[in-house]
Amino acid sequence: MIRKILIANRGEIAVRIIRACREMGIETVAVYSEADREALHTKLADEAICIGPAALSESYLSMEKILSAAVVSGADAIHPGFGLLSENSKFARRCKACRITFIGPDAETIEQLGNKQMARNTMKAAGVPVIPGSDRAVYDVETGQKEAEKIGYPVMIKAALGGGGKGMRLANSAAEFASCFQLAQSEARTAFGDDAMYLEHFIEHPRHIEFQILADGYGNVVHLGERDCSIQRNHQKMIEEAPSYILSEEKRREMGEIAVRAARAAGYVNAGTIEFLLEKSGAFYFMEMNTRIQVEHPITEWITGIDLIKEQICIASGESLPYQQKDITFSGHAIEIRINAEKPEEGFRPCPGTITGLHLPGGKGVRIDSAIYSGYRIPPFYDSMITKISVWEKDREHAIQKAQSALGEVIIEGVDTNVDYQYQILTNPEFLAGNVDIEFIEKMQEQRNESGSRI
Amino acid sequence: MIRKILIANRGEIAVRIIRACREMGIETVAVYSEADREALHTKLADEAICIGPAALSESYLSMEKILSAAVVSGADAIHPGFGLLSENSKFARRCKACRITFIGPDAETIEQLGNKQMARNTMKAAGVPVIPGSDRAVYDVETGQKEAEKIGYPVMIKAALGGGGKGMRLANSAAEFASCFQLAQSEARTAFGDDAMYLEHFIEHPRHIEFQILADGYGNVVHLGERDCSIQRNHQKMIEEAPSYILSEEKRREMGEIAVRAARAAGYVNAGTIEFLLEKSGAFYFMEMNTRIQVEHPITEWITGIDLIKEQICIASGESLPYQQKDITFSGHAIEIRINAEKPEEGFRPCPGTITGLHLPGGKGVRIDSAIYSGYRIPPFYDSMITKISVWEKDREHAIQKAQSALGEVIIEGVDTNVDYQYQILTNPEFLAGNVDIEFIEKMQEQRNESGSRI
Repeated sequence: MIRKILIANRGEIAVRIIRACREMGIETVAVYSEADREALHTKLADEAICIGPAALSESYLSMEKILSAAVVSGADAIHPGFGLLSENSKFARRCKACRITFIGPDAETIEQLGNKQMARNTMKAAGVPVIPGSDRAVYDVETGQKEAEKIGYPVMIKAALGGGGKGMRLANSAAEFASCFQLAQSEARTAFGDDAMYLEHFIEHPRHIEFQILADGYGNVVHLGERDCSIQRNHQKMIEEAPSYILSEEKRREMGEIAVRAARAAGYVNAGTIEFLLEKSGAFYFMEMNTRIQVEHPITEWITGIDLIKEQICIASGESLPYQQKDITFSGHAIEIRINAEKPEEGFRPCPGTITGLHLPGGKGVRIDSAIYSGYRIPPFYDSMITKISVWEKDREHAIQKAQSALGEVIIEGVDTNVDYQYQILTNPEFLAGNVDIEFIEKMQEQRNESGSRI
Repeated sequence: MIRKILIANRGEIAVRIIRACREMGIETVAVYSEADREALHTKLADEAICIGPAALSESYLSMEKILSAAVVSGADAIHPGFGLLSENSKFARRCKACRITFIGPDAETIEQLGNKQMARNTMKAAGVPVIPGSDRAVYDVETGQKEAEKIGYPVMIKAALGGGGKGMRLANSAAEFASCFQLAQSEARTAFGDDAMYLEHFIEHPRHIEFQILADGYGNVVHLGERDCSIQRNHQKMIEEAPSYILSEEKRREMGEIAVRAARAAGYVNAGTIEFLLEKSGAFYFMEMNTRIQVEHPITEWITGIDLIKEQICIASGESLPYQQKDITFSGHAIEIRINAEKPEEGFRPCPGTITGLHLPGGKGVRIDSAIYSGYRIPPFYDSMITKISVWEKDREHAIQKAQSALGEVIIEGVDTNVDYQYQILTNPEFLAGNVDIEFIEKMQEQRNESGSRI
């Protein structure tokens, strides 16, 4: 069993991991940059080691410094959290070389799943649906039309060497294909000096649905249900829900089974997440597998009662999963709201500063994962997320009411935050009706701009 | 349905009730004394009305002022919380006279259950076990011996007019009875000029086990399981657990059924609590029924998922319970720790003051019900309880680990608290083993005094 864990992260996730360790009787070592001397994770760990100046590359991203801190402190494992070095196969490999357990999958698995083309091939071979696309370059309309029929309309026509939207056209039907292809190819020739084209099925208004996976080292793989993370801005999730209210029991079972199959195909061990895009039609496609704990893991913990960080540690210690798929039950509905120190009306620009007054909600069904306190100075060097509020209730309607009430209670003085912006989402009629897809924020912004609102 | 509730209370329970109302879309009116101008409940309610100076009798206990505030603000119901006016039948009656819904049972029920002798008679008639005792005065050894045999040893012999321990002797067996009786009676004669004696079965090392009841106005009564509240100092609970790890499934069912029978016998409507003393032998006895929400209700909410404050409001609105006993399921183990601003080493003397620094725990399975914030000045006029921390885990062992970890994280600067004292209880070997009864704190204090520890 692991006795001492170094947490190679900061902020609320570092605090989250420290708490799991304390409850398990595992000693903790925090690492911190000079800018994080007063950070909560620095204060809460059993030991704390300063690993350098504020710059990420000289502290939280420095493998040498982190590994040295682990060796010096006698830690036998490292938990990487999310972001930073968590999906860095080189780091996982170097941990192993130092005989320190990396709490996550092995370096080879991280590599294989981090390479989009390799991951796609692995999944396709395992019968996991991937976004249909042409397997090789297309040079003429006729071949293109045949491929497009196979792929299914609408079809996105892309320059194989493309980027930045150049040489890209959407064909909604066979009737549109020829002209779209010719326009795109002509643009591609001009822009990239190459007329090789690539076709891909275009997912209209998809929802982001991801499945939480746990896999031990003995071939046991289970999923802990899905999270609906369609509320995103610039591909960054803002509000997440579990379960997804759009999935039927049948669809949930189907997607869950495929998620487990995907994890098996990758030979995955530890906690991971299979991300899918779900079409209105009910068709869904593998996007990627995240080989780490997710920011939004608390909502899965709410509906399953399972502690994902503790499971990660147990799996890394060589334990086998103490349950099978049939033992995992789901209860109620959970919503997570990310609180960022930022100005939404200025393109979500981060707004660090000192917190001069603080009140966070509490009570039944309210969970706070936070890295702040009254008097804390948010350093300007890192991610703007400072707190996560998650709530649980018996169903979606009541969970939304609780989320509104909890968010309405938040007082953070001294810095700008996205609290009001998040409240607007939580009271948006389309959100309440569950009519959301990954373009929701974009559409909401457009509507607000049209109606003259500042946000 | 109730539209607007005045909360006739302060502190964390007022905040708790405001939160439930917000989630239900019910408007809230806080009342506050001049000392509570900066209190959290004053800030969080939709409206707040100052009802007078700090003294309880001139503010929170003033029926006139509270009813006036309700009328002025147009509140159609009053939630009394716990303590203060919550078990005052006169207040319930006056609410009714003002056509304001009192969220609790009616005045007659409060009266009937508040009178110990009436309550005992009601329960005895309904077949609810009460502490066996002589039904009339006993004057001589022979009659006493016969009564004692019926009651069962050990028997406490008390002066009928007694008090303060005078004229009181414990007879452990028939052999001891005669001499004990004579001594007690002789003391009684001297002390009270009366030799009428009363005999009562003596409960040795009892545990305090209470059952949560919900009853609607249509004859539906359910229990939500039990709470073990044996950790008390001067009859004030300090740490509570649900479920009780001492009860077998069979005993739980038996006690639960009797608790429901007790509530039915009282014609009870709304949330209430049946308190029992449980003997080592497994015998248990009705102590009293509390006709209000309890401080420790969060642990029942943890293991059942049911929101007791919302249920109180729904029942008072005339709704029927949406479930039957068979629908109520229990999951995991919950522990509540009361945080008081007090000095345990000075007889738990209250220590009001200004909170200059604050960090409360959070994360999975940790619930905070608090009335404080950094910069808040705890007024010296009221109860010393400032925060409740409750935790949930899959079983008792893990719940204790979480409680230790959560409590270990608490930082409250500026005032003395019982945090360290509570931590000592949570790590006490007898507590860990579950060997506790209502004399636990007393025994722990004695041991500490003997071993020379300051506490």
